Amino acid sequence: MWKNELTKLLKVQYPIIQAPMAGGITTSELVAAVSNAGGLGMIGAGYMNPEQVLLQIKEVKQLTDKPFGVNLFVPSPFEVDKEKLQYTKTLLRPIIEELDAEVERELPNFEEEQHAFHKQLNILMEEKVPICSFTFGVPPINAIRKLKEKGIVLIGTATTVSEAILNEKSGMDAVVVQGSEAGGHRGTFHHENKNSLIGLMSFIPQAADHLMIPIIAAGGIMDGRGLMAAKCLGARGVQMGSAFLVCDESGAIQVYKEAILHATEDQIVLTKAFSGKMARGINNHFIEKMKYDEIRLPDYPIQNELTKAIRKKSATMGNPENMSLWSGQSPRLSKKMKASALIKSIISEVEGIRAKL
Amino acid sequence: MWKNELTKLLKVQYPIIQAPMAGGITTSELVAAVSNAGGLGMIGAGYMNPEQVLLQIKEVKQLTDKPFGVNLFVPSPFEVDKEKLQYTKTLLRPIIEELDAEVERELPNFEEEQHAFHKQLNILMEEKVPICSFTFGVPPINAIRKLKEKGIVLIGTATTVSEAILNEKSGMDAVVVQGSEAGGHRGTFHHENKNSLIGLMSFIPQAADHLMIPIIAAGGIMDGRGLMAAKCLGARGVQMGSAFLVCDESGAIQVYKEAILHATEDQIVLTKAFSGKMARGINNHFIEKMKYDEIRLPDYPIQNELTKAIRKKSATMGNPENMSLWSGQSPRLSKKMKASALIKSIISEVEGIRAKL
Repeated sequence: MWKNELTKLLKVQYPIIQAPMAGGITTSELVAAVSNAGGLGMIGAGYMNPEQVLLQIKEVKQLTDKPFGVNLFVPSPFEVDKEKLQYTKTLLRPIIEELDAEVERELPNFEEEQHAFHKQLNILMEEKVPICSFTFGVPPINAIRKLKEKGIVLIGTATTVSEAILNEKSGMDAVVVQGSEAGGHRGTFHHENKNSLIGLMSFIPQAADHLMIPIIAAGGIMDGRGLMAAKCLGARGVQMGSAFLVCDESGAIQVYKEAILHATEDQIVLTKAFSGKMARGINNHFIEKMKYDEIRLPDYPIQNELTKAIRKKSATMGNPENMSLWSGQSPRLSKKMKASALIKSIISEVEGIRAKL
Repeated sequence: MWKNELTKLLKVQYPIIQAPMAGGITTSELVAAVSNAGGLGMIGAGYMNPEQVLLQIKEVKQLTDKPFGVNLFVPSPFEVDKEKLQYTKTLLRPIIEELDAEVERELPNFEEEQHAFHKQLNILMEEKVPICSFTFGVPPINAIRKLKEKGIVLIGTATTVSEAILNEKSGMDAVVVQGSEAGGHRGTFHHENKNSLIGLMSFIPQAADHLMIPIIAAGGIMDGRGLMAAKCLGARGVQMGSAFLVCDESGAIQVYKEAILHATEDQIVLTKAFSGKMARGINNHFIEKMKYDEIRLPDYPIQNELTKAIRKKSATMGNPENMSLWSGQSPRLSKKMKASALIKSIISEVEGIRAKL
């Protein structure tokens, strides 16, 4: 009953993927719990250095013998806009001083990011990680060829139909269609504009009509209703972030989990304030403070580096007002539970919906 | 198989509502064709004067003995910002001159709008129109009581869960939850901000968990896949705009229909340029030209009046670049056909999906 092109491709029991949320949320315990429960656990390795990636892959392997995946960020060239940098440093100084946060001196560098990306890829190949997904772009053709030679299943990310087609043409085995409902960073890589905020009700069927590879729907899906709806629209499975973020095994700090558990859908906003790249999360003081300065902030990843100390110190202090509280548009559906219980409840909900249709 | 709380309430065969698009799109032929095919045809009377409403109700009654509905705009108080008015008149002058468009001298007036609204309500009651829906707010409690006494079924519009709850509390019998995917004006009335752009995948289940009255999903739904997805998420039916707009019986001019039939989802944008109220449509020269002036434009309905001559003349000339080409986010799903054929194809698609789930 659950078998389809996607479950066969990923070798999983259920077409439920735990989104590879970066920043310490996807602990080995979470990834393994999801995979052990019949879904696909994913390591959010976007911000990890190669050593950290290797360490966590080894850890996950200790906890499960089921398939799991790793997500990487595809680096894009960027330049440092000196004027924006200076403006934003001045803008952030009072917040940094108030929090007594420690700022790193070094700015990101594209060549170094590329170097680290290729090191990450080598680790994935050496470790024979079953599945690898990509965000913020399609990796170079040579990398794709090598990964596929090693039998690694590749998943891309798209925010428009044309991005989805680019992913299929590049050789991806499946594609995550990220709806406007999705929490965290927009995966847009073809053009970063408001036009790529397509709701899943529109995005899935339009993508399905243009693709051969299986579609994984992401954005606002937290239960069996969302999984069934995504399937009706033409997706073969779902990727869920916020739903797993509030689970017991997730590495999100308590204050972050509580923020999602108590939020309403109209408190979730889009902002560039934290990273310089559009992302969705719960509105707070920092977003409000930066609201009218968004066009003066440097692009990703510079802004991400500039706010790192603020986010870190704020998290240590347990103060949600200066943290990035990424969340999809369905916080009212969030429930504190174990990852395996979440998957079980989705499966039983689906049976109920199917019976009533 | 199709019977549910909504079809019983509306006394229709299928839970498919043709959205009450204003501005001459919902011809009596379209409304009657939808109702005769087992759905619910709706007259978009938002911009009509009372005489026009009466005339069309009588026309529709000649063409069908099935239930149909009328949609009205609930007027909200507004003031004229002299500075914005002057700025925008200057901004629009070159376009008006280029088109040789005829501008009306009189500006809208809240008291007159209220007066017309109550006249419209009286006509609906005298004509015993079976169903009445509202956009841009909840009507006054006295009006609701009188309409219900006459046995008229009332449908509200919401863009957040709290707006949906307000509708239920006011006595509405059903509520349209308008997802971010929806074309045309945002129905937001509680607070007009980006936070109310909730995708249906998130909006429907969160609303369903808080409402007793049936939910009608609107936004980006054009086929059986969308109808089934909406039902899985907790809606009892769907309201479709763009899908019926391109139908043969619709009053949209050919160049407008062609624009939707050839658009892609990433060409659909949100704009305040035409009316002063946020609305979704196909990007064009006018929207691009106004893009950086949006905060300097007067609010609805003033801006709507200021651009009326431009839109009208542009339509007469068959030039889509200065018209409001409202469309939802699924233009790739649009198909030129008869309204009855559209409904039939949805029904047969639904059977197919149900069989495969």
